[in-house]
Amino acid sequence: MSGTVRLYVEHPLGQGQTIPLERAQAHYLFGVMRLEAGAELLLFNGADGEWRAEVAQVGKRGGVLVCREQSRAQAAPPDLWLVFAPVKKAQTQFIVEKAVEMGVAHLQPVLTEFTNSERLRVDKARLHAIEAAEQCGATYVPEVAEPQKLSRLLDQWPAERRLLFCDEAQAGGSSALAGLLALRDRAAGPWAILIGPEGGFSEPERARLQGFDFTHPVALGPRILRAETAAVAALTLWQAALGDWQ
Amino acid sequence: MSGTVRLYVEHPLGQGQTIPLERAQAHYLFGVMRLEAGAELLLFNGADGEWRAEVAQVGKRGGVLVCREQSRAQAAPPDLWLVFAPVKKAQTQFIVEKAVEMGVAHLQPVLTEFTNSERLRVDKARLHAIEAAEQCGATYVPEVAEPQKLSRLLDQWPAERRLLFCDEAQAGGSSALAGLLALRDRAAGPWAILIGPEGGFSEPERARLQGFDFTHPVALGPRILRAETAAVAALTLWQAALGDWQ
Repeated sequence: MSGTVRLYVEHPLGQGQTIPLERAQAHYLFGVMRLEAGAELLLFNGADGEWRAEVAQVGKRGGVLVCREQSRAQAAPPDLWLVFAPVKKAQTQFIVEKAVEMGVAHLQPVLTEFTNSERLRVDKARLHAIEAAEQCGATYVPEVAEPQKLSRLLDQWPAERRLLFCDEAQAGGSSALAGLLALRDRAAGPWAILIGPEGGFSEPERARLQGFDFTHPVALGPRILRAETAAVAALTLWQAALGDWQ
Repeated sequence: MSGTVRLYVEHPLGQGQTIPLERAQAHYLFGVMRLEAGAELLLFNGADGEWRAEVAQVGKRGGVLVCREQSRAQAAPPDLWLVFAPVKKAQTQFIVEKAVEMGVAHLQPVLTEFTNSERLRVDKARLHAIEAAEQCGATYVPEVAEPQKLSRLLDQWPAERRLLFCDEAQAGGSSALAGLLALRDRAAGPWAILIGPEGGFSEPERARLQGFDFTHPVALGPRILRAETAAVAALTLWQAALGDWQ
């Protein structure tokens, strides 16, 4: 791991495949990381697994890489969405990064009644997702959807997708883990995790969320967690009980 | 919660108790937070629970608070240590903050063979722990011990304290959660969680750790987690399976 550059590219990867570099990629590989002709690196594109590749041509504004051999099979994350209210910029970046490490397929920012944040830059969030995937050894990059209102997201919610509703107001209620483990036998299929803003959910939001058949409300312990802590904790419980940590 | 100042003080708290303020506290309460005489705030000292208090005297360099009534009983975290290798400054701060939110009694920084970090400022880490406790509603502040070498910590390890050894090299091994749940019936007593540096543990370190009776090695999923993510994930699993999230 240490030292080997790992790069996400939007280009097919395969035995002997050549990959022409864009200017920004060439700057990063040759200007920043100081790779020379013949240097090895790892590539992934979200579809073809991870490939060991070599620098074939170095240029100031471009260059060429060549795929040598697959170093890792493509591995999709579980079909899990993280639905989260954007918080402050650094925290939102952190949530995106952690979601990639923890194994999420799709990130859906939502605006709730108590959401109070700087505007989410979706383009930046996508770049953070790519960087996190490069660093954590993932072979995929989760999608980052455009933010939408929670109420509208729920209007169109696909009924087969279960929703783990992380509700601070449940603190002291039933154990999150026991609830998830009880679902283990019958819970195949898609899931989403919903993390609210720092102020929690409004009463109308909570009432609506609790009224759905697909909703599973859980508490995350007796203390108040920040949004990004709650995201990692909920993802841990889900992955350990139902996901790819089993 | 929203808006009410919550302050850690090193002073006994009780019915009618007056608390003289130091200069920095007065500056924070009256200069920064703009509290006036009669304003309400919450106090805790790590021993006497949380108290609703009132500003009795406002001064430029001091002031006096008076305790009105206890708003929360004292609640100690589980007897859990987080043993972690300091990483970059922002990440270390994050680990301290998350440990408080997640409920840790004692933070022990350790230097491992692959630890490669700026020097840990223990005084700063203690301030971060206090701030985190003020924000997350805890009535305690975990201790932050002076850093020591992992080898020496293990030389003096108390045999009754079980050690959850989070080992990246175990990825793909047995499920962390299953292992912890299996311990539920017989695992009363003190625990510690050990999180390594970004480069993981050296082979001699791993061999030594695995050789102890008190060690429980676990993997945290199939992806590489950053140190701070691993800390939150391990704390989540422990709290959910054995701690105060049950």
